[in-house]
Parts: sequence; structure tokens; C-alpha cells
Amino acid sequence: MGLQMNTDELMVFLDREFPQVTGDFAIEDLGEMRIRTRLKVGERHLRPGGTVSGPSIFALADVSVYLAVLAMIGPQGLAVTTNCSIDFMRKPAAGVDLIAECRLLKLGRVLAVGEVLIFSEGGESPVARASLTYSIPPR
Amino acid sequence: MGLQMNTDELMVFLDREFPQVTGDFAIEDLGEMRIRTRLKVGERHLRPGGTVSGPSIFALADVSVYLAVLAMIGPQGLAVTTNCSIDFMRKPAAGVDLIAECRLLKLGRVLAVGEVLIFSEGGESPVARASLTYSIPPR
Amino acid sequence: MGLQMNTDELMVFLDREFPQVTGDFAIEDLGEMRIRTRLKVGERHLRPGGTVSGPSIFALADVSVYLAVLAMIGPQGLAVTTNCSIDFMRKPAAGVDLIAECRLLKLGRVLAVGEVLIFSEGGESPVARASLTYSIPPR
Amino acid sequence: MGLQMNTDELMVFLDREFPQVTGDFAIEDLGEMRIRTRLKVGERHLRPGGTVSGPSIFALADVSVYLAVLAMIGPQGLAVTTNCSIDFMRKPAAGVDLIAECRLLKLGRVLAVGEVLIFSEGGESPVARASLTYSIPPR
Repeated sequence: MGLQMNTDELMVFLDREFPQVTGDFAIEDLGEMRIRTRLKVGERHLRPGGTVSGPSIFALADVSVYLAVLAMIGPQGLAVTTNCSIDFMRKPAAGVDLIAECRLLKLGRVLAVGEVLIFSEGGESPVARASLTYSIPPR
Repeated sequence: MGLQMNTDELMVFLDREFPQVTGDFAIEDLGEMRIRTRLKVGERHLRPGGTVSGPSIFALADVSVYLAVLAMIGPQGLAVTTNCSIDFMRKPAAGVDLIAECRLLKLGRVLAVGEVLIFSEGGESPVARASLTYSIPPR
Repeated sequence: MGLQMNTDELMVFLDREFPQVTGDFAIEDLGEMRIRTRLKVGERHLRPGGTVSGPSIFALADVSVYLAVLAMIGPQGLAVTTNCSIDFMRKPAAGVDLIAECRLLKLGRVLAVGEVLIFSEGGESPVARASLTYSIPPR
Repeated sequence: MGLQMNTDELMVFLDREFPQVTGDFAIEDLGEMRIRTRLKVGERHLRPGGTVSGPSIFALADVSVYLAVLAMIGPQGLAVTTNCSIDFMRKPAAGVDLIAECRLLKLGRVLAVGEVLIFSEGGESPVARASLTYSIPPR
């Protein structure tokens, strides 16, 4: 199918759609059906003890699949998450960004399914895994 | 078993554990194995169009089960989410708080399982449902 | 919307679509957007110790949502499960049927979402909970 | 940690624990924290049209994580599934075995988490993905 949007176009689109989180995320690498995304961890993402909060990890997984889908189908603000299953497996390292490795397993006419492994930067064992389904608007 | 913490004690504990979200949540009703919680929707919870973002809905589900568990076992900062499955079913109404109806289905020695239905205040159909597992620290 | 199929019609349809499981399931009660279903537990559903196997519990949850959806939309063999999240919370009682209490939370044009609580017959605490999404074929 | 059981030992254990499914499964490959498993598709796994049923796919995912965990911790009949999230993404090919590629993402003291991709043999796109949590009995 080929990529419909590049990294810069995705970031511009994200800034417009999610202005509240502008600056939280960066795209590290982009390919067909896959993306690597960074959560630039700041004070507002933390829990006491310095680890990243669950909602922040969820947001990283969610935005990663969203961007991977958009990259393939083009700018569709109406793509919405319908389901997420997430396992929190290890405590994220304190004071370190999170890196999401995301892969689309399905990109259908109506539904897309992506899976995400999330690591503390430099860590070998994932702190979380997630799978998400997006509903794709009729084109 | 009986409640180990009341509404005021839960809110004090929450403020200490999640200082970043102080003021976002309120407890509407509390009972054994159940809680009703409010997300006071503000600008930072919104997406364009005025609906509440996915991570904010996740946070409401997560904090609801957390508080329901704490109310039963007492202040245990170390209870952590291990799994969440969430279905986003309808667009939340714009400019309206979200209400979570949470029930604990299991409160075991090691694991607790809660389910949550989330409504736009005054709405009849749930905007989301979630089920979460918490790991309970050894006592 | 009203029911499009009654209990007898659902069972005839099920026998045709799932001939391998004919006789495993019975409908105890049927209403709009809800159903109560029984798994008639037999030797082939058991694990050593006499408890019902995970796949059998999954099958009960799956068929319950399927029947609840069919009852509302009419005989659509092409409705397919796209996602299931299931929590196994307690060991089912030995030698006892399982009862599923199922409710549809959403019945959209494309997707339906149902939730299920599963009990050992006569038991008060659920042995499992599940939520399932069905994809509905275009009509 | 190293493998505590080899393929033959796992199959003997499985035959004893799941006598109802003896002969349904085979181990194709085994390593530390990973396993490849086959569902030998027979008449009883099928739905009309010849595709494999959802409960059969669930059973394959479940048994794969179970065997991967056992291989690492040794024969523990009491390891039980506590959660499964599964996405059904494509119709399995008719008359073809299913192959599960399973990896353990976490093997903790109390909980293990595994993820599984399931393919029709020879197919390139997964028909399903699943993630499962097992509760490990105290040793």
C-alpha cells in the first residue's frame, strides 16, 4: 500500500488533533504497518517514586497505533479507538523516556488492529504490552 | 469485610499518591465492593470537538477500581494495575462530566478484579466499559 | 427495536451453525439486549478435578453474546467475534452447570459489544467475566 | 533460567492434565520463554464453511502459554489462566492446521504474561492474536 503520510505530516496532524499533548510524543522511526514512538516523560506523567503513570502508558500505546494507522490511510481524524487491552508488567525506570514499538497486525476496511510493546529507553524487558482496535471511518 | 476507609480518607490518600490529578476526581458514592466516581471534565481532558479523550476515560476507570480496592483493604500505595481491557462504545457528550459505576467482582489475596461502566452525566447508554485487574501487595 | 427471533428459532439456528456443540447449550431466559444461557456441563468440558475448562467457559461467553445479538438483528450467520477479553476469577464448582448472564451494551451498525458474567449454577460469586465485540455484516 | 522440561515431558504432562484434548496439539519448537505449537485441526474444531471455531483458537492460545510457562517452571498443574484478551482478525483457511507462535513477556514470581500470534499453516498474516496472564502457584 505504501505510506500516505511521513513523519512531519503525522506530527502536524497530531498537534492539530491532540493539542493538549503537543510535545509529549515524538516519532523515532516509521515504516509500512509499523512505528516507533517516544513519550518524552515529564512531571505530569509521573507517580510518586518517579515512575510513569498508567494513563500515560495507555496514551503512548493509543497514539502509537493511531499514528501507524494514519500513516497508512492518510489523515482521518475520525479514526477512533474501540478497544484496548493492556498489560502492565514491570515498573518503568524513573526519569527515563518510554519507547513504543508498534506493529499493525490488520488494516481492514472497517477495523485496524495494532500491538505495542513499551520499554523504558535502554531497557530490554517491556514494561507494558497493549493491543488496540481502531474503527476506520468509511472512505 | 466492611469498609476500611471512608470517602474523605480515600481522597486524602489519592491526593498524596496522584498529586498530578488532584482535583480531577470526586467520589459520588461508596459501598462495600463498589464505588461511583466522577471525572470533573476540564480542558486538559478534551479532544477537538469537545469529547473526553481516551486516556482520560482510562484514568477514570483505573482510579475507580483503585479506590474501590483501597476502601476494602486499607491504604496500600503499592496496589498496581496489571491488566486493563476497555471498550470505547460511544462518543462522550461535550462539556459534561463522566460518571463511573464500579464494582469489584473479586477481591482475592493476590488479585482483585473490578468492572466499570462509564456514562456521560445524565446519559443512559454507557460511553465505555472497562475491566481491570489489580495486584495486591502481600500484607 | 424488539426481538427478531425467539428462543426456539435461536436454538434451531445455533444447531445449524454450530452442529459440533449441539446439545451443549440451552437458553434459560431471553429479553431485549439480554440473555441467560446454560452450559450443560459434560465430560468433554472438564479438566482433572472436575472443573470446567477455560475453552468451555470461553465458548459459553461467546455463544451467549452471539445469541443475544442474533435475537436483536435476526439470523445472520456472518456475525463474527472480533475481540474477547475474559477474566477467570474462581474455580467453577465440580459437576454443576454454568449459567451466563449476558447483556448487550452496544448494538451499532457495524459493531456490537456484550458483557457476560458466568456462575456455577446456584453460586453467588462469578467464576468468570467476559466482554466481547461482534462485527455485524452489512444488511 | 533454562528449560525445566523438554518437549516429550510437556506432552506427557499435557496428556495427563487435559486428557479430553489428547492428540489435538503438538509442539513444533521449544526454547526459553517461547514455543511454537500446532492445533491438528479436526472435524470437532470446525464451524460451517470449514473454518476453525473461536473456542478452538482460544484453546490453542491458552495451551501454548501454559506449555511455555511449564517449560520454564517445571510441572505445575496448578498454574491457571486468570486473563485472556484475544483478537480474531482473519478467517482461518479451511482444512489447514493452525500454528501458534508464543512468547513469554514476563515470568514473575506470581504472574506470567504471554503473547501469541496464530496463523493458518503456510499463511503470512495472523488469523488471531492473544495475550494471556497465568497465575503461578507458590513454590
